[in-house]
Amino acid sequence: MIGLETYRVSAQALADYEVTFSDDILDRASPELATCGNRTETRSRRRIAVLDESVNALYGTRIREYFEWHGLECQYVVLPPGEQHKVMETVLTVIAEFDRFGLDRRREPVISFGGGVLLDLVGVATSMYRRGVPHVRVPTTLLGQVDAAIGAKTGINHGAHKNRLGSFQQPAGVLLDRRFLASLDERHLRNGMAEIVKLAVVRDERLFELLEEHGELLIEERFQGSSPTGERVARQVLHRSVQGMLAELEPNLWERELDRLVDFGHSVGPALEMRADGELLHGETVAIDIALFTTVAASRGVLDDKAGRRILELLHRLALPTDHHLLDGDLLRRAMTDTVRHRDGRQRLPVPVGIGAATFLNDVSDEELRSALRHRRREAVPT
Amino acid sequence: MIGLETYRVSAQALADYEVTFSDDILDRASPELATCGNRTETRSRRRIAVLDESVNALYGTRIREYFEWHGLECQYVVLPPGEQHKVMETVLTVIAEFDRFGLDRRREPVISFGGGVLLDLVGVATSMYRRGVPHVRVPTTLLGQVDAAIGAKTGINHGAHKNRLGSFQQPAGVLLDRRFLASLDERHLRNGMAEIVKLAVVRDERLFELLEEHGELLIEERFQGSSPTGERVARQVLHRSVQGMLAELEPNLWERELDRLVDFGHSVGPALEMRADGELLHGETVAIDIALFTTVAASRGVLDDKAGRRILELLHRLALPTDHHLLDGDLLRRAMTDTVRHRDGRQRLPVPVGIGAATFLNDVSDEELRSALRHRRREAVPT
Repeated sequence: MIGLETYRVSAQALADYEVTFSDDILDRASPELATCGNRTETRSRRRIAVLDESVNALYGTRIREYFEWHGLECQYVVLPPGEQHKVMETVLTVIAEFDRFGLDRRREPVISFGGGVLLDLVGVATSMYRRGVPHVRVPTTLLGQVDAAIGAKTGINHGAHKNRLGSFQQPAGVLLDRRFLASLDERHLRNGMAEIVKLAVVRDERLFELLEEHGELLIEERFQGSSPTGERVARQVLHRSVQGMLAELEPNLWERELDRLVDFGHSVGPALEMRADGELLHGETVAIDIALFTTVAASRGVLDDKAGRRILELLHRLALPTDHHLLDGDLLRRAMTDTVRHRDGRQRLPVPVGIGAATFLNDVSDEELRSALRHRRREAVPT
Repeated sequence: MIGLETYRVSAQALADYEVTFSDDILDRASPELATCGNRTETRSRRRIAVLDESVNALYGTRIREYFEWHGLECQYVVLPPGEQHKVMETVLTVIAEFDRFGLDRRREPVISFGGGVLLDLVGVATSMYRRGVPHVRVPTTLLGQVDAAIGAKTGINHGAHKNRLGSFQQPAGVLLDRRFLASLDERHLRNGMAEIVKLAVVRDERLFELLEEHGELLIEERFQGSSPTGERVARQVLHRSVQGMLAELEPNLWERELDRLVDFGHSVGPALEMRADGELLHGETVAIDIALFTTVAASRGVLDDKAGRRILELLHRLALPTDHHLLDGDLLRRAMTDTVRHRDGRQRLPVPVGIGAATFLNDVSDEELRSALRHRRREAVPT
């Protein structure tokens, strides 16, 4: 008999990366893009850039000129845009390009330019290839800049499920350049605004006030600071959003703790997004989810009516939806079943208890959700 | 101008798991299999077991009886055996079963029974699903028990490349039961022996001596301890192997450091394994690789001739191959190109400098490798 004997393996992993605000990273005088993600001892002059067709049309020439000027040999991979391509098949297309290039393990960063869809997808490819190659993220949308790009998550959709496959893989670096937002259409700006509203509601009253006062101006100016006020507020809002998001993510980067404030807006939203099949953007489902659980909180009395009204009014002012015809009792029930599975057997529903403060509920009934939905539908302002 | 401003994200994660030697884990009196990997606050009585057809034929009934007796609701996934199935398509089959089951995120461990191929593959599926669900590994082969199961690597083959896709994902637990080895055929026992030889050469002289003296007895008795000596030595060899392997892996679990002693036997072996397309087992390519780089070390004079001969004699005594007709100059060159890419621009070739000690070479030429190959071919003892 060998009998029972146990060896314990205990090791510390360190995630360490930088999120850098930088103006005009495609200006050849900016060194960040050329050096980012290339921290190893044996440097390489080779890169792979992945971009979607829209980004390629708008910025492809400048990106190519930049790398050429810096003497970097870069292979370009251009992918079709849109959530429907955020699947394993596209990941394998990207991986085939890595193979064709003969990508090294650590010293040849993959640099992706795009919105959340592209960054999440390239994140899956880079986290799997050789068990992880460095990935520099350059978000070109507002949602990418304040949310998708700055944490450690990667993901693709699978079957009927949003982000069902993925990993936690720290980026090699993140470069935030608001100049990209100049070319964003209004709907995508509002889409990113929804994630900022989310963060403001659960942890940052000052950010909420800035959005109440200047949200429309920011959208109008596309965060480019065309007026002195717009400039000051764009700067404040972007920094507070990124700082606040990182403050939530950093102590829980691998989601050991499943009670997450930043899951506000993401309880039934993902199921609605998959159901709507391209009709709704991610941020729009976040807004609908925020509205629903704000109503749940107000009905329970954990959130006072005035604060509840401010949240809904802000969503309306930013022209974000607060309801959708596909969100019905059946979808709510199925969404909650999956959310509970994903939150390991508990609801862990973040709901606001004021502006800038939230708590978690674990005992929300189907009927309570349906009642909140009816309430929303009665109040809904057509958008 | 926002100007440049940088936020640094710095987070520590603890990887923490246990590798447990246990006799007869399928005995209903053994609690390990029922409790392993179920450490969360919200426990569940549901499990998914993944096994290959061979394991299912030999142990399927006992496994089902065990879970039933312990009142666990278990879904069984039986996969075809063999390296050719270690691909993304099979991963997606396993993931479809997770979806069908409605797998929770943290509290319903996936338990896999099998050799390295199956454990690596299920590792990929569990590390991707919901960005990681718990995976308990029960290796049923010698190679699985001393190598594949006990570290944090997962992997599948892709294109012409061995383990090109995968992740580092700590197992939720590893249960080692040498009774499974009783049903292993001799070739697979020798296959596992190759990884033990590797470890002995680079770091454990005493283990090497045990193999010289008792290796054939261990294979004959299939590590079951039919004689008092066999029992004592089986215990010693398994424990020294696991302990030594974990001592190498634990401080470098995510392979930040690419100079790895345990890569001995894995410099040109993986390319040969893919080229041989099922004709050679993994451990057999490890043995061929060991023989080649032992010859390189001896030709350079970093390893004295006597030690070099002992290593080759041990491989012969264990009836492991030291050469293969598919290993030619062209394959060597291509293998080294890819190995250098995987080791980030350097060769980092582990070679022995004695029995139980090794160093790294970074300047081995194509001609030097071809010369070692010719040398091996002249000396090769037909096996």
